[in-house]
Amino acid sequence: MRTRLYKDGVVVKKGFPIADVSEYVCDDDCVVWFDLCSPSPDQLGVISEELGLHELAVEDVLNDHQRPKLDVYDSHLFITVYGIYLDDEGDLDPVEMNVFVTKNALVTVRENERFNIDDVVARWDASGEHTARHGVAFLLHGLLDYVVDGQFDLVQTLDGQVEELEDALFGESGNNRELQRRTFRLRKNMVRFRKVTLPMREVLSTLVRRDRQVLVNAEMGPYYQDVYDHVLRVTDWVDSLRELISNLRETHLAQQGFKLNEIMKRLTGWAAIIAVPTAITGFYGQNVPYPGEGQPWGFWMSTMVVAGASVALYTVFKKKDWL
Amino acid sequence: MRTRLYKDGVVVKKGFPIADVSEYVCDDDCVVWFDLCSPSPDQLGVISEELGLHELAVEDVLNDHQRPKLDVYDSHLFITVYGIYLDDEGDLDPVEMNVFVTKNALVTVRENERFNIDDVVARWDASGEHTARHGVAFLLHGLLDYVVDGQFDLVQTLDGQVEELEDALFGESGNNRELQRRTFRLRKNMVRFRKVTLPMREVLSTLVRRDRQVLVNAEMGPYYQDVYDHVLRVTDWVDSLRELISNLRETHLAQQGFKLNEIMKRLTGWAAIIAVPTAITGFYGQNVPYPGEGQPWGFWMSTMVVAGASVALYTVFKKKDWL
Amino acid sequence: MRTRLYKDGVVVKKGFPIADVSEYVCDDDCVVWFDLCSPSPDQLGVISEELGLHELAVEDVLNDHQRPKLDVYDSHLFITVYGIYLDDEGDLDPVEMNVFVTKNALVTVRENERFNIDDVVARWDASGEHTARHGVAFLLHGLLDYVVDGQFDLVQTLDGQVEELEDALFGESGNNRELQRRTFRLRKNMVRFRKVTLPMREVLSTLVRRDRQVLVNAEMGPYYQDVYDHVLRVTDWVDSLRELISNLRETHLAQQGFKLNEIMKRLTGWAAIIAVPTAITGFYGQNVPYPGEGQPWGFWMSTMVVAGASVALYTVFKKKDWL
Amino acid sequence: MRTRLYKDGVVVKKGFPIADVSEYVCDDDCVVWFDLCSPSPDQLGVISEELGLHELAVEDVLNDHQRPKLDVYDSHLFITVYGIYLDDEGDLDPVEMNVFVTKNALVTVRENERFNIDDVVARWDASGEHTARHGVAFLLHGLLDYVVDGQFDLVQTLDGQVEELEDALFGESGNNRELQRRTFRLRKNMVRFRKVTLPMREVLSTLVRRDRQVLVNAEMGPYYQDVYDHVLRVTDWVDSLRELISNLRETHLAQQGFKLNEIMKRLTGWAAIIAVPTAITGFYGQNVPYPGEGQPWGFWMSTMVVAGASVALYTVFKKKDWL
Amino acid sequence: MRTRLYKDGVVVKKGFPIADVSEYVCDDDCVVWFDLCSPSPDQLGVISEELGLHELAVEDVLNDHQRPKLDVYDSHLFITVYGIYLDDEGDLDPVEMNVFVTKNALVTVRENERFNIDDVVARWDASGEHTARHGVAFLLHGLLDYVVDGQFDLVQTLDGQVEELEDALFGESGNNRELQRRTFRLRKNMVRFRKVTLPMREVLSTLVRRDRQVLVNAEMGPYYQDVYDHVLRVTDWVDSLRELISNLRETHLAQQGFKLNEIMKRLTGWAAIIAVPTAITGFYGQNVPYPGEGQPWGFWMSTMVVAGASVALYTVFKKKDWL
Repeated sequence: MRTRLYKDGVVVKKGFPIADVSEYVCDDDCVVWFDLCSPSPDQLGVISEELGLHELAVEDVLNDHQRPKLDVYDSHLFITVYGIYLDDEGDLDPVEMNVFVTKNALVTVRENERFNIDDVVARWDASGEHTARHGVAFLLHGLLDYVVDGQFDLVQTLDGQVEELEDALFGESGNNRELQRRTFRLRKNMVRFRKVTLPMREVLSTLVRRDRQVLVNAEMGPYYQDVYDHVLRVTDWVDSLRELISNLRETHLAQQGFKLNEIMKRLTGWAAIIAVPTAITGFYGQNVPYPGEGQPWGFWMSTMVVAGASVALYTVFKKKDWL
Repeated sequence: MRTRLYKDGVVVKKGFPIADVSEYVCDDDCVVWFDLCSPSPDQLGVISEELGLHELAVEDVLNDHQRPKLDVYDSHLFITVYGIYLDDEGDLDPVEMNVFVTKNALVTVRENERFNIDDVVARWDASGEHTARHGVAFLLHGLLDYVVDGQFDLVQTLDGQVEELEDALFGESGNNRELQRRTFRLRKNMVRFRKVTLPMREVLSTLVRRDRQVLVNAEMGPYYQDVYDHVLRVTDWVDSLRELISNLRETHLAQQGFKLNEIMKRLTGWAAIIAVPTAITGFYGQNVPYPGEGQPWGFWMSTMVVAGASVALYTVFKKKDWL
Repeated sequence: MRTRLYKDGVVVKKGFPIADVSEYVCDDDCVVWFDLCSPSPDQLGVISEELGLHELAVEDVLNDHQRPKLDVYDSHLFITVYGIYLDDEGDLDPVEMNVFVTKNALVTVRENERFNIDDVVARWDASGEHTARHGVAFLLHGLLDYVVDGQFDLVQTLDGQVEELEDALFGESGNNRELQRRTFRLRKNMVRFRKVTLPMREVLSTLVRRDRQVLVNAEMGPYYQDVYDHVLRVTDWVDSLRELISNLRETHLAQQGFKLNEIMKRLTGWAAIIAVPTAITGFYGQNVPYPGEGQPWGFWMSTMVVAGASVALYTVFKKKDWL
Repeated sequence: MRTRLYKDGVVVKKGFPIADVSEYVCDDDCVVWFDLCSPSPDQLGVISEELGLHELAVEDVLNDHQRPKLDVYDSHLFITVYGIYLDDEGDLDPVEMNVFVTKNALVTVRENERFNIDDVVARWDASGEHTARHGVAFLLHGLLDYVVDGQFDLVQTLDGQVEELEDALFGESGNNRELQRRTFRLRKNMVRFRKVTLPMREVLSTLVRRDRQVLVNAEMGPYYQDVYDHVLRVTDWVDSLRELISNLRETHLAQQGFKLNEIMKRLTGWAAIIAVPTAITGFYGQNVPYPGEGQPWGFWMSTMVVAGASVALYTVFKKKDWL
Repeated sequence: MRTRLYKDGVVVKKGFPIADVSEYVCDDDCVVWFDLCSPSPDQLGVISEELGLHELAVEDVLNDHQRPKLDVYDSHLFITVYGIYLDDEGDLDPVEMNVFVTKNALVTVRENERFNIDDVVARWDASGEHTARHGVAFLLHGLLDYVVDGQFDLVQTLDGQVEELEDALFGESGNNRELQRRTFRLRKNMVRFRKVTLPMREVLSTLVRRDRQVLVNAEMGPYYQDVYDHVLRVTDWVDSLRELISNLRETHLAQQGFKLNEIMKRLTGWAAIIAVPTAITGFYGQNVPYPGEGQPWGFWMSTMVVAGASVALYTVFKKKDWL
């Protein structure tokens, strides 16, 4: 378990046991962070007691299927967001991240190890000076910024996939069934993505609203606003992608209809070109004394009629673009 | 009929007659609960008189086809919610639950026995300490929490059904007609589900709004907020499912179009491969002295032409992926 | 023309001429109601003068194609609602009802006799005691309640029709064209219905809003709220029905696509089973010395090849579920 | 160019030059109206100077492609609305009408002569008494009322066209291609119509809002409200029409699918009835000693088999409703 | 790099180095503009220091994929808009333009040279008198006006493309596949266009809101309102175009369905007309003593039956409009 104690913006201690937390928390100059990964109810119980967390927030950590949200309790905030990763098959894999925010402590509770907390820590360390002045507000900003950046990367990946599908649509279709499967999967990923990214707007807009000055002071305001702008960009982009996919899908349907018509026209054309000679040789196969029966000129007649009809039909159909 | 009398959070009496209610209700330390199951108008009349319920609320209990709602009367609240169960065929079966909430009495009126009130009671008993402090507000919370949890379970079941359909879509389609029937049913259940779950948002948001402090005090606030969050999760999820089903349905349509094109291409291909030999043998069946008539080399000629044309067509079509 | 004079909630006079109205209206204890059915401009002129109605409201009565609305004039309200009936062919037939509401007079102006004002009167008489206390507000409530109940009945009828169509969809389709016609008609009725029922929400929400206490006092409040709830139920239900119909329609389309594929597969299969023997007998019909020409074993050969090919194709296709 | 000078509601002068306007405008008892039709920038410049119009408003008059709007400048209002006419081919032809409204002057600037200003003038003259009391507000009301009435007439025309299409859909389809063309055109007209009618709601709602009492006083209020109601009716109706057309279009598509299935079924049926005899006579055409070769009973046999097979197939298909 | 120093609305200096800026900025009578094109981080750093720009705003300049937005910082505004151009293939090519607005300085940062800043400068110079009175507010207005005018031009271009497609739809379809490709591309451009034009509404509505009087004073108000009106016109128009394209697309689909039905009907018809003679000559090709075998009248019989059947079928099908 990772723990950190900041004093005046500098990390003064790492890896201390949770039991010591209550001691540091009393000191207003200290900022404590610790991180839990899929904790047991007991572990959560200890922390909850140390920091005086609300039982409902603790319960929410243990339950799955939350949605991104921000709950305001008397003594702390409880935030749920989703880090978004892709699994080996390229499917969306959202990882829940629960955050408790008290006056001078930040507790991050990851659903599993796939949420890469090291990247968040690196981000914090990169601009350490802010920690001194803004404490918890800065740490929370770093975390949210990381999460939203991840969503931004993903929406770019999805954009790339849409472009690939567009190219496939008008290129050599190759494997049509494969195209459908990929479109299906992309849309499914989009639905899942929207589910975890749309409510982020609400979470951030609550944080940037001016009246919640306790956490976000005037100086940190623009930083949270910046994250909020990023969230808006993500959701705007996702909406555009939905429209592009719907464009894709509907064009695909129209193409299928067009191809069917083409095939039917061709079928009709060639069927006629084969059926007419068959009918003519049928005529010359009758056991009745038709003109030319058993005569060499009958053969020439038959051959000429067959050839003539075939060529005529072929020419006409070619002209009408039916072949 | 179940009745309960709480005093200081402890059940002091059970199964007393309704007529005694007015007596207990006067005592501010008491909390009375009683439960009715598809009551007769007379039974309701008695209760209505004892508690001073509004005639319109009582009428609403007797009518079917309500929607989830919260009516505020001078002396009491009237709430309608729906417990959601699945019947034997897997179809949605919402059961109406009407609740009268006065200062220290809670009356639950179930449409029928399928609404499992025992589970609600068990939930109440599990955290008895709250009853003492919050009385009716706690009991109501337990009931609503149970109802929303039931909706949450259902949305998970529906999610599972959507996944099954997705697997069926790209797997061996087996019975296409069955797939359509299941999709149809799933969508129908979704529509019915939305009808009873969407208005829940309004009911809960009215309860959590701060100005209705009479019922929900500061301490109970987060608990009602928690139920509200659950409702939002359910409705968000239902919206995602709707999109997933629409993805499913549209992919299915595209697949059908694709299959039709495949069938038509094959039809065209094989028709040509059979029609060409027929035309050739028609030629050799004519009663005119064509080259090779009655000659052994004529037979070899005919056979070679037939075989050659067939093989050529087969090769070409196979190359074009038409067979 | 029907007229009524209430005094202290009791009908003291009926059928008096309009010209007397101005006299009763001055008396605050009196409540006057009169009903007009498709009145002439002159008749309206008289009433307008007696009660001091605004010329624009009077004009609106004479024009068709209103929408449900509530206009607030200085001295009176003007309300337009629609009673909904079904005509002989089962099509929706909305009948306009215009209402002038002054302090102690209610004027109902029906578009035609199909709006059954007798039912409204019966409703008023059933709970006469309210009239004494709430006067015009009670009469108006009775009228609106009747109108909304009618809409509720209709939405139930439409619901039944949707269920019938659902049964027809998966049952023996019988007459496909008839199914389409009924779906078309149902949707058309839905559109018309929404047109007269959606604006009702606005009309009633205006009436229940607390600041319009002049007409709807604290005691009548819940009654108007109740009508409003009914309107919401109707519009919610209509929205559900729209989704159910869209489910119906799209499943129908998918079924058609499925059937087309089935037909094409069968067509292909049987075409092959007939075409192959034709090709083979074509071979044996050639006038060249093929093996077995004119020999009995040639006949057996031909018959066996034909039978063998047919049986083989039939078996393969049956296995692939193509026949 | 038309000009009018009202004094106490009476037209005292007509056709005076624009240059005189500034003189009359100073007199509070006067109301000046003048009308321009596709004026040159110079003409507009003169008027702009006389009345002190804002340069942006004047620019807007010269530019095309405005949308209905109401701009509030310090000394005057600038309103853009669209008169709607049908051109010779029945296509929508909106004509821009720009209006400057100062305290006692109304300037109407028409895009072209098709906007029939004479009808507006006739409307004004019909109820001259209002002019005396409400001056410019009354004139503006008359103009807007005329414009909205025109839109109302058009929506009725469109409604009639939708009904015609509905009749054509289930009647003898006659010319299917023509039906598509008309539906396409109708929808196009609807889009154009919505573009000029939807923003009208905003224009009117701004005018009726109570705080803009300068122009619309208490007495004129209901008249503007009336126009607003008409606008709402138009937009409601247009929305209904959109749904009806979508019903129409989707039913049309379902019909096409149905017809295709019918045609395919029939094609299959008749193909079988013709192909089977061909196969049988092929058998009897073989040059091998099949039973009955060259025997009269062979002919009867062949004929009976052909006839039997054909009749059997016909009967079976007829029963299955495949022919 | 372009720089300008205005004093009392007159350009007094051009092309001075950035380092001098801080000096001019202190003078309240001066207005400084300078323009950067894809600047390096270092260049931005210098300017940021001179003008005291917020680090987040500077970062946003360096990142791609912004959305049009307006950020309010303590000492300056930061605005992102998109100039819209078409690339050589006719695809949309939005060019980012970032603007810093301080009390008396305007910094424009273009993504690349395709954003034509010369046109903006020309616009400023055309009405120089405003610069004197409104300084930065006037310069910003000129820039935004230019950007929105560009969007307006584009929406007109797109409108023209929609009309072309409409003509192609009902004209000689020529190349159907080409039509689909163009529709696809047009829709894609529309999606991209909406992405950069919709958020413009928000940017401008923030600027015109009265409480932000620092930048936009009473006199400039109408000018910003005018740009806002233009933005609304653009977004309204885009919405109309979306509907027109959807009309186009759905009509296209219906046409395809119609054509398929036509082709199938024709196929059926001609197949019958060829198949029936084949069956008849098959009959006369049998090696059994049918009536007329080897007789001249047999030939006439066969020919007459063939001709008769063909003519009869042709006549019937022609009548039913099946050919």
